[in-house]
Amino acid sequence: MISISDAFELIDQHARVLPSQQQAALDSIDCLLAEDVASDMDSPPYDKAMMDGYAVVAADLADGIAELEIIEEITAGNVPTKTVGRTQAARIMTGAPIPDGADAVVMIELTQKVGETHVRIEASGVTPGKNIMPQASSLACGVTVLPSGKRLRALEVGILAEVGRDQVSVVPRPRVAVLSTGDELVDVTEKPGPGRIRNSNGPMLVAQIAAAGGTPESLGVARDVREELTAKIARGLEADILVLSGGVSAGVLDLVPSVLAEQRVEQIFHKVRLKPGKPIWFGKRTVDGQTTLVFGLPGNPVSSLVCFELFVRRAIGLLAGRTENELRAAEVTLAEPFVHRGDRPTLFPARWEDAAQRTAAPLTWKGSADLAAMAAADLLLQFPAGDAEYRAGEAISALLL
Amino acid sequence: MISISDAFELIDQHARVLPSQQQAALDSIDCLLAEDVASDMDSPPYDKAMMDGYAVVAADLADGIAELEIIEEITAGNVPTKTVGRTQAARIMTGAPIPDGADAVVMIELTQKVGETHVRIEASGVTPGKNIMPQASSLACGVTVLPSGKRLRALEVGILAEVGRDQVSVVPRPRVAVLSTGDELVDVTEKPGPGRIRNSNGPMLVAQIAAAGGTPESLGVARDVREELTAKIARGLEADILVLSGGVSAGVLDLVPSVLAEQRVEQIFHKVRLKPGKPIWFGKRTVDGQTTLVFGLPGNPVSSLVCFELFVRRAIGLLAGRTENELRAAEVTLAEPFVHRGDRPTLFPARWEDAAQRTAAPLTWKGSADLAAMAAADLLLQFPAGDAEYRAGEAISALLL
Repeated sequence: MISISDAFELIDQHARVLPSQQQAALDSIDCLLAEDVASDMDSPPYDKAMMDGYAVVAADLADGIAELEIIEEITAGNVPTKTVGRTQAARIMTGAPIPDGADAVVMIELTQKVGETHVRIEASGVTPGKNIMPQASSLACGVTVLPSGKRLRALEVGILAEVGRDQVSVVPRPRVAVLSTGDELVDVTEKPGPGRIRNSNGPMLVAQIAAAGGTPESLGVARDVREELTAKIARGLEADILVLSGGVSAGVLDLVPSVLAEQRVEQIFHKVRLKPGKPIWFGKRTVDGQTTLVFGLPGNPVSSLVCFELFVRRAIGLLAGRTENELRAAEVTLAEPFVHRGDRPTLFPARWEDAAQRTAAPLTWKGSADLAAMAAADLLLQFPAGDAEYRAGEAISALLL
Repeated sequence: MISISDAFELIDQHARVLPSQQQAALDSIDCLLAEDVASDMDSPPYDKAMMDGYAVVAADLADGIAELEIIEEITAGNVPTKTVGRTQAARIMTGAPIPDGADAVVMIELTQKVGETHVRIEASGVTPGKNIMPQASSLACGVTVLPSGKRLRALEVGILAEVGRDQVSVVPRPRVAVLSTGDELVDVTEKPGPGRIRNSNGPMLVAQIAAAGGTPESLGVARDVREELTAKIARGLEADILVLSGGVSAGVLDLVPSVLAEQRVEQIFHKVRLKPGKPIWFGKRTVDGQTTLVFGLPGNPVSSLVCFELFVRRAIGLLAGRTENELRAAEVTLAEPFVHRGDRPTLFPARWEDAAQRTAAPLTWKGSADLAAMAAADLLLQFPAGDAEYRAGEAISALLL
């Protein structure tokens, strides 16, 4: 039995960032950019009108008033064909290119048409550059706009689009296969007969994987039969991570360890000093340079939930290139005194007393089988091993759910 | 021109929670549960072993030591067939039902087989109930385990599965259509010719919608041609929200307002005292009891981003049944002094100085066309209208990106 921090260290040693791949930017939200992205052209590609109005020669408005001849109309998507000379103006739309000769834009609200051909303008402070966004002022061609290592958000998808990229090289989402094992498991939609229980961990793990930034693949339930286990585990080993739910306790029908050994999955640790979740198993297979991490989670639903949040989420994060800082547990403040008893570090459900202030109160909880009571939990407090009385206001590490 | 808070009030008046629908629990993460979910059976459905070991009569171990006859072996998924009497024991696996007669489980580590038929146990404190999880102690049949109004997470998917529900009634994700308008727009993968720009807002909005909990539907680009606009807007009005990007300024080719009017979309507000993002348009169409909210966002990428985060995200949240508290802007602390000048409330990009402490520093920023500089932003600070000098340590409202 090892400590949580030793388990973290072993996971960190074996969970390597996935090789980058080219994929759609829109499918890459939260992924790490794996290339420097440069602008392929100036943005804006021309001096651009920032207002609807008239492109003018600023000097014509030195006195704040002028009547100018309208020489053309430049709509967005069209280009100017004429040069604006002194006492001339061009009607221009937001976003359109500034015509040659003009050096300022006067907003439409300060202008009044005079007949069909002229416009009267009353505007002070019209200096060269007014309401014009100069070419390349947002992005200059060839300049890196997004550096490798940047995590992509909606905003970055917009920037990528601006420089012509709908495909981009990123660290992909880890593919995580889930296999529930055990003769006692029936499908969620079935009514369990005597001695049977529903496979609730399978769907919960699929949802947890997606929330953790992985791509889940559900392999359903494997009975405690060697051929079935072998086939499904072999399929799961094609993923980046295989999560086995149940089947790693000391039961006589626990074929899983022997099937894993057969498939060349090497055990890295088994059992962590932790409550709930002690029986967790971690291993690895590397074949032809491709590595699959394997987690065996306890069958108890709360233990499964805790082990996922503590260990599997960490592995998914490492494969996706998350930093130490992103993997770190949150720190919260206890809203009320709490007595923790136990010789193992304990994950204990709590609710936000005040989420903004990050104060949390432990829940009343009957222990690791009490999944229903967990529905009230916003987070899991991490109490160290040993009996201790905590005061309100003390800082405690926590996993947010 | 109205204030931000007036705009919020109008959005709040018109954005009603969507009608609930039955859908897969696994597709309902972050959705609001729209029914009380009760347990359909006791959980566990029988008194259950919490440990691998032997089911015994506690009284046999009053002295802490006993040699007992093994009468059967109960594996997970099987049911006991015999009654355990005094001086007898049944080998039992974690999760298996406790046989009649037995009232405690002794963990395997405290036992030693004696020949094929007997087991020697040395264990103190074996009282009735030891290592047994009583029937219904997690969930009793008929009891509500998840109340209507609960927001679903992975944990709740597990609880739903435990009570046999893979389908559930929820407030669905709002469907949000995106239509970019304007003759100047070319597809992301094209190189824009003179006077043209790439449609960067379209992909950015699609990513923003997904991040805000909506289901995006991209309608691509519509040219400034009445027939094309009419067809695409009609299609967009089948969604819960239609977001139009560009096309609502005072340009002569701005057909959008007239097409919207034709399609019976009623304007609710146009222009908000805000920088950037002033030209935002909001309207609504109700036909046959089905309502579609319509937002017209400015074409400028940063204005578009800001208007989405401020207004469209709010509407998506309201349709999805989010609470006032969930819609509220965050509050952060200024890490350094800042001078804000301007007669409109301003959204200004900032980065985390310390995310855990929620201190933020404004970025160097050239204004609303400077999308690339926004890549460094973690949040947008909301400065009120008017010139003011802010001190380090002052609290400021913020939108997290």
